[in-house]
Amino acid sequence: MNQPKSYKGYLIDLDGTMYRGSEKIPAASRFVKKLIEQDIPYLFVTNNSSRTPAQVAEKLVSMDIPATEQHVFTTSMATANYLHEQYGQAGVYMIGEEGLSHALNEKGITLVDEEAKSVVIGLDREVTYEKLTKACLNIRNGAAFLSTNADKAIPTEQGLLPGNGSLTSVMTVSTGVEPLFIGKPESIIVDQALAVLGVDKADTVMVGDNYDTDIMAGINAEMDTLMVFTGVTPKEEMADKAVQPTFAVDSLDEWQIV
Amino acid sequence: MNQPKSYKGYLIDLDGTMYRGSEKIPAASRFVKKLIEQDIPYLFVTNNSSRTPAQVAEKLVSMDIPATEQHVFTTSMATANYLHEQYGQAGVYMIGEEGLSHALNEKGITLVDEEAKSVVIGLDREVTYEKLTKACLNIRNGAAFLSTNADKAIPTEQGLLPGNGSLTSVMTVSTGVEPLFIGKPESIIVDQALAVLGVDKADTVMVGDNYDTDIMAGINAEMDTLMVFTGVTPKEEMADKAVQPTFAVDSLDEWQIV
Repeated sequence: MNQPKSYKGYLIDLDGTMYRGSEKIPAASRFVKKLIEQDIPYLFVTNNSSRTPAQVAEKLVSMDIPATEQHVFTTSMATANYLHEQYGQAGVYMIGEEGLSHALNEKGITLVDEEAKSVVIGLDREVTYEKLTKACLNIRNGAAFLSTNADKAIPTEQGLLPGNGSLTSVMTVSTGVEPLFIGKPESIIVDQALAVLGVDKADTVMVGDNYDTDIMAGINAEMDTLMVFTGVTPKEEMADKAVQPTFAVDSLDEWQIV
Repeated sequence: MNQPKSYKGYLIDLDGTMYRGSEKIPAASRFVKKLIEQDIPYLFVTNNSSRTPAQVAEKLVSMDIPATEQHVFTTSMATANYLHEQYGQAGVYMIGEEGLSHALNEKGITLVDEEAKSVVIGLDREVTYEKLTKACLNIRNGAAFLSTNADKAIPTEQGLLPGNGSLTSVMTVSTGVEPLFIGKPESIIVDQALAVLGVDKADTVMVGDNYDTDIMAGINAEMDTLMVFTGVTPKEEMADKAVQPTFAVDSLDEWQIV
């Protein structure tokens, strides 16, 4: 691997990159500790909309990865920021879990059932027909339609479970309205994360295991990318991709932080 | 309207054609009574998978439309017939309401949670993430994937609610497997309905208010169609359609049963 560049900031994916479900990735822990030793800013950027930043940091610490909630940027936070920029604190109809309601609440955004200015959906493992109905009626009534992320499936020990992208499709198919997706691979979340990190895009690298979300997010945001083959995308698949990541490693131990 | 033909059998849609939600359509009642007077066989063909034939007949009678359960053919019955033909009584993982479970039970088909030979989804207003998960896991495990109908929305007094086609998309998007749809506009349900009616296709007409389901079902099955503008499709929309129904009327009172 040719690694010519010194980066001043790191955006880092979580599942598949820092850990695999409930399994540690020791090289990930060593990697983050090296960033800290060299005083290089890093921010974890995740499409997981279910957890609050504090809950994410707690999980990272339990995986021996140094993190506080200030190191965490979730697609729920990106969605709440975007909604606040566009519509202030106007009423939102939400389908989602604690991570999303917490992020909306942090911005002072009101949750409503009817006459919503916008509808937002994140993964909700307690989704019901009634919730889907309210989302559809608000969208048909003119509410903007946003979705935290388009992930089709969630890898778990049980197998691949329905991801938020598949739940989102209920509204898309029923109303004919396409949502605005906020999470990776969209550049919306990356641009916001860069602003939080406070490092110039040209000096930052996006690190992840999933070509279609993490690496494409970096490519869409026109920044350098580092692929690590510890998660979703197998090495063999990479040859077929038209746009390659800037760098690719089997383990983060191979990466020199310079 | 030019009406040159005498038909020996009628396939008739329900909602929008025989009634509108809980509202009677008086011309529909007169129409069916004329069929009975002239001893012409008819069969109601519906994409509603929720009700049993007995429940549908009861509703028709309450709308002053003569019907027994022998006059009703639901997409749940068509789906159960299809499954039985293809896989015998092999285990099915089902998402759906009473109409679907009743139809599968009538064919002696076993309902299972795991290792299903097929997955079938009909409208389920008590759908949960767990049900969607089981469907996805069975499909990824190789089960055939069927859906009673592709309707995107259900007209109700509350507005347009999510239809079974939109719930079905959760599995389609998550697994990447396209379902086999059974209901209108597919010809599967029409061919089965014709067999139940016992009249030759060339002598039968399909009557309905929804161009995209009822009329397209007739067109796909290569039979004559009668459009009635008492339901979903407005008259103004018809001009844009590449394939026109054989006949079109504002009210079934205009139709001469000869």
